[in-house]
Formats: sequence, C-alpha cells, structure tokens
Amino acid sequence: MKKITIASMLGVVALSLAVNASAQVKPEDQIRYRQAAYSFTSWNMGKIKANIDGTYDAAQVKAAANAIAAVANSGLGALFGPGTDKAIGSQKTAVKPELFTNGAEVAKLAGNFAKAANELAAAADKGDAAAVKAAFGETGKTCKACHDQFKARN
Amino acid sequence: MKKITIASMLGVVALSLAVNASAQVKPEDQIRYRQAAYSFTSWNMGKIKANIDGTYDAAQVKAAANAIAAVANSGLGALFGPGTDKAIGSQKTAVKPELFTNGAEVAKLAGNFAKAANELAAAADKGDAAAVKAAFGETGKTCKACHDQFKARN
Repeated sequence: MKKITIASMLGVVALSLAVNASAQVKPEDQIRYRQAAYSFTSWNMGKIKANIDGTYDAAQVKAAANAIAAVANSGLGALFGPGTDKAIGSQKTAVKPELFTNGAEVAKLAGNFAKAANELAAAADKGDAAAVKAAFGETGKTCKACHDQFKARN
Repeated sequence: MKKITIASMLGVVALSLAVNASAQVKPEDQIRYRQAAYSFTSWNMGKIKANIDGTYDAAQVKAAANAIAAVANSGLGALFGPGTDKAIGSQKTAVKPELFTNGAEVAKLAGNFAKAANELAAAADKGDAAAVKAAFGETGKTCKACHDQFKARN
C-alpha cells in the first residue's frame, strides 16, 4: 500500500500513527489542515527571511524555526489519506495525483524537509545568523522540490 | 497604543518584533496566517484527544504537543495588526472588534494559552499520559476562554 508508505515517512510519523490519525480526520479536513500547516509554515519562513534581509532578532528567528520544525515533525503524512487527491465540495487542493502513487519520492522529499527544518531550528537555537541563513536556504529548497513535483499551483 | 501591547504579549513576542512582523505582512495575509495557525493547532489538539481517549502513543502526542507549543510561542500577536478587525475582500474573519480594544485581557488570555501549551509539551516530552490529560484539559480551557470573548463564530 503506497499510501501508507508515504504517510509513514512524511514527517517521520510511524506507520500505525498515520493510519490511526487518517482514520480520525475527514478527508476534507485533512486537506484543510495540511493547507493550514503549509500556510503557517510560509508565515514563519517569511519572518526568518525578513530577519536575514533586515535586522536579525535571534528570539524571533528561534521561535519561527521551532514552528517550522514542529510542522515538519508533526506527521503531515496523515493528512494525505484516501480521498484527498482532489477537491471535496468547496475544499480545493493543489496536490497532484502523482503524490499518491510515488511513495518513495514523496518519502525522500519529506525526509529532506524534516532534516532541513531540524537543522534550521538547531542553527536558530544557537543564534548563529550565518548558519541560519544557510539552513534557511536549504529548507526553502526542500519546499520547492516538493512543490515542483507534487503541487499543481505555486 | 493598545495594538502594540496586545501584539507584544501574545505568544511572548517582543514589542519590536511584533511591529516589525506586522509591517511586513499584508492585513489579509495576517488573517489568513492566524486562521492557519489555529487550524493547525486544532488538528494537533484532535490528535492528542484521540490518544487520550484511545491508545496512547507517546511519540505522536509529543510531536502534536510540540506543534501546539510552537504555535503558541510563534508571536501570533503580529497577526492581529491594524486593518485585520474585519473581512478584507473574500478573506473573512471571526474576530470580535473588542480584541483590538482590550489589550490587557487579550494579553492575559494569550499568556494563559502559551503557559498551558508549554506545560502540555513538557508533560508530553516525559511521556506522562496522566499529566498530558490534565494539561490538555487546561490548554483547551485557554482556547475556549479566548473564543468565548473574542471569536464571533465557534
């Protein structure tokens, strides 16, 4: 079952958990929640970028990086369950159908995102602006890598 | 300036950061991002509830609690900037106008949320199911306290 493989790898969530969590959340809510997770991530990425480009505030960067890592480690795979590959009523989705049939690639990209986000959080925790800038760039690349392959609109 | 007082207290974000962040995010995006933050929180609260009511998985609860705490500490006050007190085009909001004129109460409620979320994350980190159940209840109360006063729809 490719779906389960995907779910189990995304965000480093264990197999049983992903299945369990998927079962408890309606498909339209899975889409809504995953969009919320990415939107919240986008806000926090934007804050870090503003700090890199402008005045660097270690506390704000640390909080934002922690938020991104928490999203990456939250088990997002559970939000790509059966029936979430297309719009449900007014709940649209930009996911490409390929995400649900290419588990190995999705798992790789999700693992890259989690790894980069954790490294970003570690750099932010040290207050190391140069390391944050590098890790931020790497994290952004992992976002784009997945969008390029599995998101219909960007 | 009550707005700044609110922003500086919500999520324990420093004054200058909140102003800085507000300035960088368009009002309609502030509404969108704060709704995303709360929606993402709702998903994670739901996961913890499912673990408390069913089979307790410490890893899933820890990840979910970390996510909620990261939201609570992310500086949400910056997303309640000027012009976000009512719908902007198709971007609706359920916020009551009172939120923008009752800084002391908002700050108190936001502080309660952050405190409870941090305690929930600490309990989850220890894998203490009984402590998680108690902290989850307290966290839920802080959500409801703010909704009751400052959210028009529930």
